[in-house]
Amino acid sequence: MQTRVNIAVDAMGGDNAPDEIIKGAVEAVNESSDIKVILVGKQELLDEKLKQYTYNESQIEVVHAEDVITNDEAPVMAIRRKKESSIVVAMNLVKKGQADCFVSAGSTGAVLVGGQLIVGRIKGVERPPLAPLIPTIDGVSLLIDCGANVDARSSHLVQFAKMGSIYMENVVGIKNPRVAIVNIGAEEEKGNSLVKETYPILKNCDDINFIGSIEARDIPYGKADVIVCEAFVGNVILKLYEGVSGALVKTIKQGLMSTTRSKIGAAMVKPALKETLQAFDASEYGGAPLLGLKGLVVKTHGSSKSKEIKNSILQCVTFKEQKITEKIKDSICVNNE
Amino acid sequence: MQTRVNIAVDAMGGDNAPDEIIKGAVEAVNESSDIKVILVGKQELLDEKLKQYTYNESQIEVVHAEDVITNDEAPVMAIRRKKESSIVVAMNLVKKGQADCFVSAGSTGAVLVGGQLIVGRIKGVERPPLAPLIPTIDGVSLLIDCGANVDARSSHLVQFAKMGSIYMENVVGIKNPRVAIVNIGAEEEKGNSLVKETYPILKNCDDINFIGSIEARDIPYGKADVIVCEAFVGNVILKLYEGVSGALVKTIKQGLMSTTRSKIGAAMVKPALKETLQAFDASEYGGAPLLGLKGLVVKTHGSSKSKEIKNSILQCVTFKEQKITEKIKDSICVNNE
Repeated sequence: MQTRVNIAVDAMGGDNAPDEIIKGAVEAVNESSDIKVILVGKQELLDEKLKQYTYNESQIEVVHAEDVITNDEAPVMAIRRKKESSIVVAMNLVKKGQADCFVSAGSTGAVLVGGQLIVGRIKGVERPPLAPLIPTIDGVSLLIDCGANVDARSSHLVQFAKMGSIYMENVVGIKNPRVAIVNIGAEEEKGNSLVKETYPILKNCDDINFIGSIEARDIPYGKADVIVCEAFVGNVILKLYEGVSGALVKTIKQGLMSTTRSKIGAAMVKPALKETLQAFDASEYGGAPLLGLKGLVVKTHGSSKSKEIKNSILQCVTFKEQKITEKIKDSICVNNE
Repeated sequence: MQTRVNIAVDAMGGDNAPDEIIKGAVEAVNESSDIKVILVGKQELLDEKLKQYTYNESQIEVVHAEDVITNDEAPVMAIRRKKESSIVVAMNLVKKGQADCFVSAGSTGAVLVGGQLIVGRIKGVERPPLAPLIPTIDGVSLLIDCGANVDARSSHLVQFAKMGSIYMENVVGIKNPRVAIVNIGAEEEKGNSLVKETYPILKNCDDINFIGSIEARDIPYGKADVIVCEAFVGNVILKLYEGVSGALVKTIKQGLMSTTRSKIGAAMVKPALKETLQAFDASEYGGAPLLGLKGLVVKTHGSSKSKEIKNSILQCVTFKEQKITEKIKDSICVNNE
């Protein structure tokens, strides 16, 4: 029998914790016998909630954590002080090798800080990027970095490009992924000083498939697989994506309800429309990995329901099997020599 | 009789020049007797094309320009060398006071460079921002700056906030417009170094209604009227707006056509949907002003049709009547003393 992948899950993090987290964990173990989920949180509560489900009991373990870090807390302070919080306890399991991966829908700041301070960076990695998958008209692209560390240097962006390529190729399964840098025009001489400095270095990297600049307008059309940018810009892209699609869908719904004729039509288009919009929903693809750490840390949306939790847990299996951490280590080390 | 507002229009710029430009100019003078349009471009061609329209002939004049600056040319070089191009000839009309405003659907780079080199900045203005109106679920917001000058300083952003407020209040008619700075979180301590430096200065400006940070996700919901950011981020926001809505509308159309049932429904929702989506189309509101210059320069989309040209021309009347240039001069000078 193959060794199971051990995945620590923050049972207390997110808007729908613990119910949706537990549900997602059960769904994951019922779908794959290759994993073991370690639910981290209030033991008594979790044991009680788990009773309503049927699953292979050897695949779910509960590890007690008394505290919870909330979104309102300053991340660095929270990670340092709340030693008994679900995030800190779970990350320590990864650090000690008792878990391979960690999934949380809790405070993004705390997950990012904890990843660096507790799990720790792979030697040579200067900054671990948070890299969500974003939907495009024909699939997904990896947006790297959307983390909390802004004012990046070009050496960070180059590492993001390498780590992002490894992830897209091995976890998402896109051969020779096209890497592009976010810019305000297609020409090499365009851009701010960071982009102008980074562009020629990326162009000379022979271990990635660099295709040049990408304008923001082309991102939703899937013109690149790995979208490299510093975290401020990445954050703007990620959140605007969410904002524009949300606002547009709201506007369209209002339009559909504006006349009697359109109301009848709306009832007829609803099932087909729902299916199409689902393809434009990033939660289908699981959470965002925080790359470059000694173990995999996955941050899912705060609003995650069981499906996103399940997908995030299952994504860890591929990450482990494909030895992403080792591949990143090799790639970064070779380049640092 | 009130003096007419003289508006120089680049008859040769944009994907649909000169036909749609001429059409838009005719529509504008037929809608308002307060304007005179000076069409700048190849005299013979324009005279010939104008023959098919009926309009008050004292309201349209043609000024000859032999050359055209294309999108492929390096802007600074083109402005310096092509003295007989429509953009340079028209901007010189503004410089000499023979025109109050200039509207172009031509090369954005050339318009930005020409605005600074030929029309010239208002004394005290450090950098003229390009400020398009972007659609929101309940109206429009001004996104300032989307120009070509990246790596801004905090003093630039503060001037953008003031100029944007004046424009929104006096041209768009929004009383006491809410000003926000684009950030990756709502808290004052968040952001990159530029935002952290600018935030407290904006907070202390008593001539603007500063409401703090805005996350990109909230922009389409109209949570602020004036959205302040440096040009790289502004450019990403503007183009992603276009990209996400375009991709989503395409996806939805495919969804509507996916089953027989949905095809019938689609025919029924089409009129209502079209009307709603129009409200989410920025071209309704005319072009983007390049603020802080001695005359008004308006850049419209390269793909502009007559309607956007017409609206851009009419927008100039309010700009002139409301004495925006004088108001900007007063605001910036007071603050520089």
